[in-house]
Amino acid sequence: MKLKIKEVDVDSSEPGVLIHDDDCIEIGVQEGDRVNISGPKPTVLLVSRSDTIMEKGLIAIPSAVMAKAGLKDGEIVSVTYAAKPDSVRSIRRKMDGEKLEKEEIQAVVEDILENRLTKIEISAWLTALYINGMDIDEIADFTMAMAETGDMIKFDRSPVFDFHSLGGVPGNKITPIVVSIVAAAGIMIPKTSSRAISSACGTSDFVETFCNVEIDAETLKEIAQEVGGVFSWGGSMNLAPVDDLVIKVEHPLGINPRAQMLASIMSKKLAMGATHLVVDIPTGAGTKVPTIEVARQYAKDLMDLGDKIGMHVECAITYADQPVGYAVGPNLEARECISILEGNKHPSAVIEKACDCAGIILEIAGIPNGSAKAKELLESGDAYRKFMEIVVAQGGRPDLKSDDLKPGKFSFEFCSPKSGYVHAIKNKEIVAVAKAAGAPSDKGAGLLFAKKKGQRVEQGEVLFTIYADNEAKLKRAKEMAVKYQPMDIEGMLIKRVSPLNVR
Amino acid sequence: MKLKIKEVDVDSSEPGVLIHDDDCIEIGVQEGDRVNISGPKPTVLLVSRSDTIMEKGLIAIPSAVMAKAGLKDGEIVSVTYAAKPDSVRSIRRKMDGEKLEKEEIQAVVEDILENRLTKIEISAWLTALYINGMDIDEIADFTMAMAETGDMIKFDRSPVFDFHSLGGVPGNKITPIVVSIVAAAGIMIPKTSSRAISSACGTSDFVETFCNVEIDAETLKEIAQEVGGVFSWGGSMNLAPVDDLVIKVEHPLGINPRAQMLASIMSKKLAMGATHLVVDIPTGAGTKVPTIEVARQYAKDLMDLGDKIGMHVECAITYADQPVGYAVGPNLEARECISILEGNKHPSAVIEKACDCAGIILEIAGIPNGSAKAKELLESGDAYRKFMEIVVAQGGRPDLKSDDLKPGKFSFEFCSPKSGYVHAIKNKEIVAVAKAAGAPSDKGAGLLFAKKKGQRVEQGEVLFTIYADNEAKLKRAKEMAVKYQPMDIEGMLIKRVSPLNVR
Repeated sequence: MKLKIKEVDVDSSEPGVLIHDDDCIEIGVQEGDRVNISGPKPTVLLVSRSDTIMEKGLIAIPSAVMAKAGLKDGEIVSVTYAAKPDSVRSIRRKMDGEKLEKEEIQAVVEDILENRLTKIEISAWLTALYINGMDIDEIADFTMAMAETGDMIKFDRSPVFDFHSLGGVPGNKITPIVVSIVAAAGIMIPKTSSRAISSACGTSDFVETFCNVEIDAETLKEIAQEVGGVFSWGGSMNLAPVDDLVIKVEHPLGINPRAQMLASIMSKKLAMGATHLVVDIPTGAGTKVPTIEVARQYAKDLMDLGDKIGMHVECAITYADQPVGYAVGPNLEARECISILEGNKHPSAVIEKACDCAGIILEIAGIPNGSAKAKELLESGDAYRKFMEIVVAQGGRPDLKSDDLKPGKFSFEFCSPKSGYVHAIKNKEIVAVAKAAGAPSDKGAGLLFAKKKGQRVEQGEVLFTIYADNEAKLKRAKEMAVKYQPMDIEGMLIKRVSPLNVR
Repeated sequence: MKLKIKEVDVDSSEPGVLIHDDDCIEIGVQEGDRVNISGPKPTVLLVSRSDTIMEKGLIAIPSAVMAKAGLKDGEIVSVTYAAKPDSVRSIRRKMDGEKLEKEEIQAVVEDILENRLTKIEISAWLTALYINGMDIDEIADFTMAMAETGDMIKFDRSPVFDFHSLGGVPGNKITPIVVSIVAAAGIMIPKTSSRAISSACGTSDFVETFCNVEIDAETLKEIAQEVGGVFSWGGSMNLAPVDDLVIKVEHPLGINPRAQMLASIMSKKLAMGATHLVVDIPTGAGTKVPTIEVARQYAKDLMDLGDKIGMHVECAITYADQPVGYAVGPNLEARECISILEGNKHPSAVIEKACDCAGIILEIAGIPNGSAKAKELLESGDAYRKFMEIVVAQGGRPDLKSDDLKPGKFSFEFCSPKSGYVHAIKNKEIVAVAKAAGAPSDKGAGLLFAKKKGQRVEQGEVLFTIYADNEAKLKRAKEMAVKYQPMDIEGMLIKRVSPLNVR
């Protein structure tokens, strides 16, 4: 039927239209069905029905959608029922536990990317993936489809190394150190990182405090081939772009189906042209990977998938029962990271983890005793010089010093309520406090530990300092820290068991 | 943080707000998270993020939502992160295949009803129900929760009989006949029906052509207790209202999880105060229930559930390989239905089905030879007189005649392309053609068969007539009929198999 366009000046998370109930009956559509809209670029849009706010004869369309379809306010358009895309049938097949063909998986990925699937449908897809899963062939097809629906970078030389951390542990600032060591050894490693999704500080969130991370594909390729290393933000390139759309549905559900997680990681590596990949799997309480057994399964999945898509994959299961190093938050992590490159021997755990990970890459590239060689490159200053080359190539200051990175002006020292030993530092609670303080958007916000696990502490001694860029957030973070008590302090005697309290 | 309200004059299918990306980071919310909004009635709303259309410092809220929360355009409100409702955790538990507690199921149902769950979450819930299912205890809790979140009717006398058809077969106009026969036998049967969701004509869609079906609970109770029977539209009462919200997500997914389907049917019967129920399960190609085995499973489920919730349930598995009777569409079905009550002996299959279903109810109520007794009540005119009593009580004309119901002005005779026998009448295609002609909103629209399955037909003879209230829809329906060929005509010889075409 013919309807008159009413422009609605509001953004829409889904490309939908609003039509009066009676007109919907006339067209033969229910809530959640789709309609074809005539116009310069015939468009399929999702229907919402209303009998209250909408007048009959009108079709409300958000401005953004109108612009894309070349429609004008007040224009008369022809509106007809549109069938669901075929990929909805494939989602149903996955709900029924069936194995999907390559073409079906490609169609689902393309339809998500082109906004042809609704949130309801994407939610059903992810839930079906979560429950019924995919076998390794399907995951490989899924990975290829996600990579191929975005830009694919081709380097002029090979091998192309990459490094990835599954994340989930706060304070994990090793990436620029790993990249600098590896590149200093003459191995190309064009690393793209992400910003925090649920964490307090992603690699890009702290790297951008000292150089530009928003680098396009062409520039990245140039820097990688000239300097050997890059630490850029993946979001500034169009790599496996469907992933960002999927996250919008995964996040509210709080799920990350195994197939989606594996395809998400590996499609980005594939799109970056990586031929060899080392994956850091932080393992410990309060992270994504609670036990070594789970970590081994992830490692096996990643390596199997690597085999299927022609990428050499190795994994490093790393200790993550507490934050990595002493700093959490953008400026604080940047300072700790750069000071290690400058030659500071503290914190040793960060140095060890970075050298072990870099060492695996060196060994894959044919350099024996990788970890020792990595440490040599770090101690000799070669890694630091490479780091500064990359920083400058990415628009950073050539006279950058770790001390340039300042914690927030407002601070609060969190003191131990009793004497004893640090029995635990709770990762999730630390992240919550750092976020309450303003991380990652407030660059000075975060935490600096005075004590780590196993250390002796006296009552009233500082356990950690919270930093913030504004007072209100500091107050909020402080309240949260008091409420959560993110560090457990106990004596050597944890509990006395006597005949009295056993009975 | 404090934001200024910008009223948006558009209805929203979800109670959401739009906030600038930077403000979202400040508040600490992602797309699909929730925020608390201060105001006269503190409200939790769903967040959409934008960095294009929204200005910083503003929060766009749809008018309908503002009215409900008592908010004003331009007002400054405090906007803070709100946790997900606990029911999201129960949805996750169902995704993990766990058995839910009664309280968890109640919380999911209440949160859907109160708009506290998003479409993404409801979609995950339904998908998890579809894949992992519920056991009979969970389904009983689900049924009770759905019934108890709406109005519950209590009749002053017992037993209260009810009749339900799973539907899925076009032309199934037996309900008013069954109700009239049963009420004529002195048994109370306050039947509520639905309108078409995906079919061409629900019971309420054709009953409203000759009397009012929008009857409130009080009036329904009065009519039922005085006259014995009612055929009203369930939608005019607040029975298990969560079902309507769930359908909005089920429909786009094209699923109807077993647990949801059973709870949906039985919660409405429970809310109506039914103590005894007979369920018609139309079984055949192109319906919801393709085979007798599937039908038996449905019957078992319904009876088991009846046991759990204290309702006596019996089922009738009925033939549905082709439409029931000769008419499909509101006026056409009403005419066929009333003419049978008036004493017409055609179509015999409709009479037989109605009497068999009514007969089961009579026997449960203690009347022997139910089917024969039902036929007696029909042939004696007792059922007709009861029918007219109900019609008049529901505001229909006392001089109603079947011939008052007229098919649409525009018609097209669909003729057989060849001579042979009717091998099949395809239910789904018949529904599609009737809907294209305008059913169920155009009351004259529909199909009238000249031939049914097994009958001999000559080339050029009329197979069925399509009726419509306007010419454009007739044209559309005609084109669809030509394309779909909803009746298969074959000779007695279906295929010759000779040495020549076997090899």
